[in-house]
Amino acid sequence: MSPDFEEKLRKKDIGPGDRIRVSSRGKEYKGFLMPPSTGGSGTLVLKLDSGYNVGLSPDHDFEVEKVGNVDERFSEVSPVEESFEKTDRDIPQVSILLAGGTIASRVDYRTGAVKPSFDEKELLSFNPELSGIADIEARKIMDTLSENIQPRDWTEIAEEVKKETDKGKDGVVVAHGTDTMGYTAAALGFMLEDLSVPVVLVGSQRSSDRGSSDAHQNLVCATKAATSDIAEVMVCMHGSSSDDFCYLHPGTKVRKMHTSRRDAFRTVNGEPLAKVDWENLEVEYIRKDYRRKDKDRETKLKDGFNEEVALIKVYPGMDAQALDAQLQGTEGVVLEGTGLGHIPIKNDSMRRMLEEYVDDGNVVFMTSQCLYGRVNMNVYETGVDLQNLGVVGNLNDMLPETAYVKLGWLLGNYDKEKTKELMLENMRGEISQRTEHEEVR
Amino acid sequence: MSPDFEEKLRKKDIGPGDRIRVSSRGKEYKGFLMPPSTGGSGTLVLKLDSGYNVGLSPDHDFEVEKVGNVDERFSEVSPVEESFEKTDRDIPQVSILLAGGTIASRVDYRTGAVKPSFDEKELLSFNPELSGIADIEARKIMDTLSENIQPRDWTEIAEEVKKETDKGKDGVVVAHGTDTMGYTAAALGFMLEDLSVPVVLVGSQRSSDRGSSDAHQNLVCATKAATSDIAEVMVCMHGSSSDDFCYLHPGTKVRKMHTSRRDAFRTVNGEPLAKVDWENLEVEYIRKDYRRKDKDRETKLKDGFNEEVALIKVYPGMDAQALDAQLQGTEGVVLEGTGLGHIPIKNDSMRRMLEEYVDDGNVVFMTSQCLYGRVNMNVYETGVDLQNLGVVGNLNDMLPETAYVKLGWLLGNYDKEKTKELMLENMRGEISQRTEHEEVR
Repeated sequence: MSPDFEEKLRKKDIGPGDRIRVSSRGKEYKGFLMPPSTGGSGTLVLKLDSGYNVGLSPDHDFEVEKVGNVDERFSEVSPVEESFEKTDRDIPQVSILLAGGTIASRVDYRTGAVKPSFDEKELLSFNPELSGIADIEARKIMDTLSENIQPRDWTEIAEEVKKETDKGKDGVVVAHGTDTMGYTAAALGFMLEDLSVPVVLVGSQRSSDRGSSDAHQNLVCATKAATSDIAEVMVCMHGSSSDDFCYLHPGTKVRKMHTSRRDAFRTVNGEPLAKVDWENLEVEYIRKDYRRKDKDRETKLKDGFNEEVALIKVYPGMDAQALDAQLQGTEGVVLEGTGLGHIPIKNDSMRRMLEEYVDDGNVVFMTSQCLYGRVNMNVYETGVDLQNLGVVGNLNDMLPETAYVKLGWLLGNYDKEKTKELMLENMRGEISQRTEHEEVR
Repeated sequence: MSPDFEEKLRKKDIGPGDRIRVSSRGKEYKGFLMPPSTGGSGTLVLKLDSGYNVGLSPDHDFEVEKVGNVDERFSEVSPVEESFEKTDRDIPQVSILLAGGTIASRVDYRTGAVKPSFDEKELLSFNPELSGIADIEARKIMDTLSENIQPRDWTEIAEEVKKETDKGKDGVVVAHGTDTMGYTAAALGFMLEDLSVPVVLVGSQRSSDRGSSDAHQNLVCATKAATSDIAEVMVCMHGSSSDDFCYLHPGTKVRKMHTSRRDAFRTVNGEPLAKVDWENLEVEYIRKDYRRKDKDRETKLKDGFNEEVALIKVYPGMDAQALDAQLQGTEGVVLEGTGLGHIPIKNDSMRRMLEEYVDDGNVVFMTSQCLYGRVNMNVYETGVDLQNLGVVGNLNDMLPETAYVKLGWLLGNYDKEKTKELMLENMRGEISQRTEHEEVR
């Protein structure tokens, strides 16, 4: 703790919003001084040119000087509050729903601890660009780390999004942890039918106290995406390992493909819908096959989910008893098989189990642990055998996780016959058309 | 069936080995006529310039002409048989073990059916380049589609490989189905300690009756790789979607990442060890961190495998009972968690189950369903909680499938304490060093 530095700031007549150069602990930083409320006693918060905030606990060698004029946006928190009253301005109305996760966390610069989430005022003071993009209304809807998100949370988030579309918002941003964001994106995609406006899931791979945090860029880009023409459920995350753009991934095709990279999210078996350029904040459309925004269309909520479903990854040496145990109590399962969609059906007990399971009126769908490519159970004997047992193999290039979410959703909203039929239909972009670029032969 | 075309061949004095141009059914082909034994009555087999064979059942519009000289390699099967006797020649000795799968299948050009496997004579007559690379000894060790491969098969394959290294061979090729080739490669990697020579797994994504078959190039490149300096278990498959090279992937880092592409196999969290150029059949080394070939070193066989292990993918909505059922009867499990290595531990019954399981002396290791990147259970509360329950989270960037194979192998050869210790050590390249290119912050 060094009250020293506050004294130094006062002496040099430096206040919030001033552009300053600070050197402390052997490092130099340049940026705008943020209001004291964003840090804490003994801490100084700078908004760097990269858009990131850095919190410093200055040491005794601390030096500071003014290097430019005040940026009014940062001089106090109030400008943001002001913008907030004027909902009649001719800029889009975007709701930000905070569900939890790293992006909805705030680091206390004094203690280094991550606070579970922050409120609208803080959100806007830390991300002042938001107010330039849209009139923002932000609220916390839950405070759940995404590894703990359960299907009932998907239902709750869908309901909260629906409230916002009913209010006539131009778009909805959902701040969510990254661990299971792909599952939630698929779930919202199915639960929100005839979606009228963009719904953009956003998270961050690294918390805002880290120099390489992606929280700020992702949130600003997601808010911009929420004002776009794409009335789909999307995931907005870094598109590269630089801070140059974010991709808008289709919610039923996106998967977290890296534990720590900022560009961890990838559209699997397809192309992202669009990108948001970080320099000029423009949405560049990549695909044309998306639902256009139409605020007059009513978003329908179909938020049932039947939890009596399972996603089962099959591997060499998998115990037939373990498979049996997982089938118990379920009405349907998605298998994550090998290659084009196989499981070791030469294993007689496994064969018998599946046979009985299907005979009992339950449904079994096949996907591939390869993740990329299409399932095809007509090429090899094993695939044909499995189909004869009643395993449904034409889910095409649907991701295992998306197939699991879709199955639970269908069984929660339709009867079994309809479920079987709709599983094979492309309802929300979960099955890609074959493209010329694809190498299938 | 058209005896017509045989008559036409006779009239034009065309025989096996002749370079011919054929037009039939509106298409034109150029290549060397293969011996009748490779096709069947009514079928003509051409070795195309691409190296692929094509089987034709000529129609009545069939036309044929000689366009070049005889290539002696294809004039009859015997030259191959001949080379076969001269094991004293100064070229490498390579064993090809046929375990099954598409690459060890042969299409009957008459019926279109895929025969389960073919013998050494056929192998060499279909792939005449092999004899130029090495003295080949080939034998079938099993005939198992790779989706049906079980841990006991890994043990059997390891034993067969060991027989070949004991004979003083320069390298061993194992022809194997692609579905579970990654698992088998990891298993052989662990089971064969201090490996003296290259062991190269090879498969094909498309059977040899298809114009785009990768069987021929992969097998020839794998045989070349078996003569290289890299005494590691590797997977040799197409490196791109063109026919330009094959990659040699490290066996503990390779994963099938596409259901149908020829370049489906990828080194995950690392670089391939080398590539084999298809034009000049040269091995281009990419990495230097491999074990050098040394025929004087004795390959040790550690082929135990404890099947009381499981690989469990965790997902939102996973039933705690299902987890419990999978833990029953096992001594250790590998969890495929979300993100940096999480599972929904807020679920009290799941927490209790894991706690009891570990208290009973069993082991739990964490990997990530992201596949790419390192597990790190020190970043978030959930990870720390899980570690406190006894879940081991420092497997680093080990693939879930490799971790599962390693766990079963360790428990089959060591006691539990040693297993816990060795799981965290890099024994066979299954854990990568951190590299500068990696984005970890």
